[in-house]
Amino acid sequence: MTPALRVAALSRRCLAQAVARPVRAASYSTAASATQLARAFFQGEPDGPTIKTAIPGPESKKLTQELDEVFDTRSLNMLTDYTKSVGNYIADPDGNVLLDVYAQIASIALGYNNPSLIKAASTPAMVSAIVNRPALGNFPSHDWADLLKSGILKVAPKGLNNVFTAMAGSDANETAFKAAFMYRRQLERGGPHVEFTQEELDSSMNNQAPGASNLSILSFKTGFHGRLFGTLSTTRSKPIHKLDIPAFDWPQATFPLLKYPLEEHAAENAAIEQAALDEVEHLIKTWHIPPAAVIVEPIQSEGGDNHASPDFFRKLRALTRKHNVLFIVDEVQTGVGATGKFWAHEHWDLQDPPDMMTFSKKAQAAGFYYADPALRPNKPYRQFNTWMGDPVRAILFKAIIEEIQRLDLVNHTAKVGDYLYGKIEGLARKYPDQFKNLRGKGQGTFIAFDNPDRDNFLVKAKKLGINIGGSGASAVRLRPMLIFQEKHADILVDALEKIVTTR
Amino acid sequence: MTPALRVAALSRRCLAQAVARPVRAASYSTAASATQLARAFFQGEPDGPTIKTAIPGPESKKLTQELDEVFDTRSLNMLTDYTKSVGNYIADPDGNVLLDVYAQIASIALGYNNPSLIKAASTPAMVSAIVNRPALGNFPSHDWADLLKSGILKVAPKGLNNVFTAMAGSDANETAFKAAFMYRRQLERGGPHVEFTQEELDSSMNNQAPGASNLSILSFKTGFHGRLFGTLSTTRSKPIHKLDIPAFDWPQATFPLLKYPLEEHAAENAAIEQAALDEVEHLIKTWHIPPAAVIVEPIQSEGGDNHASPDFFRKLRALTRKHNVLFIVDEVQTGVGATGKFWAHEHWDLQDPPDMMTFSKKAQAAGFYYADPALRPNKPYRQFNTWMGDPVRAILFKAIIEEIQRLDLVNHTAKVGDYLYGKIEGLARKYPDQFKNLRGKGQGTFIAFDNPDRDNFLVKAKKLGINIGGSGASAVRLRPMLIFQEKHADILVDALEKIVTTR
Repeated sequence: MTPALRVAALSRRCLAQAVARPVRAASYSTAASATQLARAFFQGEPDGPTIKTAIPGPESKKLTQELDEVFDTRSLNMLTDYTKSVGNYIADPDGNVLLDVYAQIASIALGYNNPSLIKAASTPAMVSAIVNRPALGNFPSHDWADLLKSGILKVAPKGLNNVFTAMAGSDANETAFKAAFMYRRQLERGGPHVEFTQEELDSSMNNQAPGASNLSILSFKTGFHGRLFGTLSTTRSKPIHKLDIPAFDWPQATFPLLKYPLEEHAAENAAIEQAALDEVEHLIKTWHIPPAAVIVEPIQSEGGDNHASPDFFRKLRALTRKHNVLFIVDEVQTGVGATGKFWAHEHWDLQDPPDMMTFSKKAQAAGFYYADPALRPNKPYRQFNTWMGDPVRAILFKAIIEEIQRLDLVNHTAKVGDYLYGKIEGLARKYPDQFKNLRGKGQGTFIAFDNPDRDNFLVKAKKLGINIGGSGASAVRLRPMLIFQEKHADILVDALEKIVTTR
Repeated sequence: MTPALRVAALSRRCLAQAVARPVRAASYSTAASATQLARAFFQGEPDGPTIKTAIPGPESKKLTQELDEVFDTRSLNMLTDYTKSVGNYIADPDGNVLLDVYAQIASIALGYNNPSLIKAASTPAMVSAIVNRPALGNFPSHDWADLLKSGILKVAPKGLNNVFTAMAGSDANETAFKAAFMYRRQLERGGPHVEFTQEELDSSMNNQAPGASNLSILSFKTGFHGRLFGTLSTTRSKPIHKLDIPAFDWPQATFPLLKYPLEEHAAENAAIEQAALDEVEHLIKTWHIPPAAVIVEPIQSEGGDNHASPDFFRKLRALTRKHNVLFIVDEVQTGVGATGKFWAHEHWDLQDPPDMMTFSKKAQAAGFYYADPALRPNKPYRQFNTWMGDPVRAILFKAIIEEIQRLDLVNHTAKVGDYLYGKIEGLARKYPDQFKNLRGKGQGTFIAFDNPDRDNFLVKAKKLGINIGGSGASAVRLRPMLIFQEKHADILVDALEKIVTTR
């Protein structure tokens, strides 16, 4: 057998097994205890990690070298054997199996080789979506409305009942930016029925105002919204993300960098948040390229897991409303359950919902939700591209949603998160220099802390069979899947202690 | 049955039939004539279009209204029933079946419900790619090198043996732009080992030079490269694509707008091309934001099917080489066989290959090919994002490539294109005002002409059972699939004549 065939055969066996052992249907109305439900989340998982070789091992090294001939491998974290990965466990080609609390940069919701998703991926509808990929703006499938309503829109955040679909978080954000610019210019012009002037038409073709608007997007320092040219201009995470790339002269406000533990710094943190709000208002009022929108993450995820209070976000929303600037919430990394709410901004209890909310990653599908019909541009083909998303990923998101609801995984994650947070809080008391600024209390498993030797911390974690990611300068960010349970938390916490107590 | 179930059942039947009637294996070495081979391209196609209702019919209208509640439908061309579409024929929910020479904006290579692709879409490898979507930069699958080498790289253009994968044409182009900016700044800095200065690091975070480079991409008027913020700044197709969106002040050169028939305007066209080249050189030398790269389409596809001679492109390549500006060829629409070469720029016979070539659409996968190792940024995480492409689409492209090679579809398309061009040339002689500036001779089926009442022309085509697209202000662009045969050309030509001879 050729290697490819061998892999296919292996994978066929693996998938057949997975499908043959379906997760037993759990229902909200049964008397099953949380523990019993939890037990059903994923069958076939190992009891814990297995480490057989150094990582990377010999096989991984060989394969990485082959890959490097044609593909840049310098950001490679770990070559992965997906056919052997299962549930919360990620496998490599050397037989190492790690508990994965990074989950493809927070993008796997329900575990590797999830039987329900394998089922969805094997349907005729999925096969058709793969081979007959539509240009969604021109030739949507007759059942596209049905797929949206029974999938993506079933979890639409409160108040936002429309969607523009996109390919990934970055272009979801750029599409939202475009909607904001068109919306603002339409207001300035006097409404949707006012035609473009000849000067606008002509100057737009030369990339000049008034046709190309002189407007900006206000974002926050240490925020991350993507790496395309528009989003990169709003991304302020690290120089390595931005160096050498031309950027728009758009404004940035300081994100409140709170002090921990929160309960010991209440007054100070309130002042930090107020200062940030004042800066936002000042920039809205004075920046030489006026903001059409403010974009913010509920938790700054790439920038180091920076949290702010619900009160801060409510006031930020009010500020944008006051100045007639649109409010875009970027839930690319925070969305789909990990914070213990389906969307993290549900923690804020907003009376006035965001104008747009973008999503991707664990949703697998991407795009932005909105409500105001005026956010649909006034003419066709203004918000358009060939594919405008991918029905393959819309079908998968629908299956993910159904599984999340069937197993009540958002509430589950809230509970497991509390359990995990409590355990790490214990570690932080024991090793205060190693688990600093613990954050994410009451935010599901979206937990992080700072470590003075973070990069080494992550390397040691791998040796102990745990795959973890970092963010910002010194944060260890936990991004377990929604099927992460107390038993996994125990393994993780055990390893965290070993990391800081062994050389 | 719910509508969704009914659709699934229908679609299951349809796919089962498709798989049950596999295309007989054709081999280059058999004595089969081209016609016999051609007959095998697609089984189960109807003999011609069927028009049962006005388009949109009552069912389409009802479904469109439902879709419009949640999704902008103003760019909708035709609601499609993909389960009933087959080969070159696209179906709608009202039972209308049209010959499709638009093919999802030139993005379907091998026909709807192609049995070979259905097979590829049903493999365990595909299912795994759907449910275990990797963050390709961090956690590529152990067989990613194998998949690249046996797929995407098997058709790498001459001289370009590396690839960066992306999601669609637009971000493929932006990724190429980023590579160009980093490359140029590295040269200016003195090489890959020269570290960034503190000033660069700091200013990059403020979107200011020197960290954010003051460089540009030179593109051509009437060109199209996408609608994200960087690519939109190089797109110069129509105001409606650009209005209200902030843009970089980047330079544009005039694309040679040749006069037809070419043989009657040889000297004039040569002068037009030289003037365009002079303008490019002038802009490279004088534009206040120096170009790091020139991007060009082999045939300007959205901008109206504007062609230039191989000589023009060879000289353009030489010019970029002379001034040390990178040369990016955008084959998003022209690539994958439709011009009678796998990549359209093979028509130019370049001795010095492009620095980068971008692809998407009919490839289904997207990205850019390159050769120079210096186009890999000097540090990891500079050219990075979460997904960096999609293995689902890489697997599909591999299957598309295998089918193209098995059936020799590029040469087939060159021949069918000549046949079709000859027929339309006949129409152009008969109706010179209706088929103006016929272009695409020797360019496979990538054929276009201008019509004085173009939009109405397209509407009438639909009534006659032909789905055609327009481009630019007055062009009718033909974008048949690679399985388009003489029998389809006859149906098309027949309809084209009816369009211009009936009210």
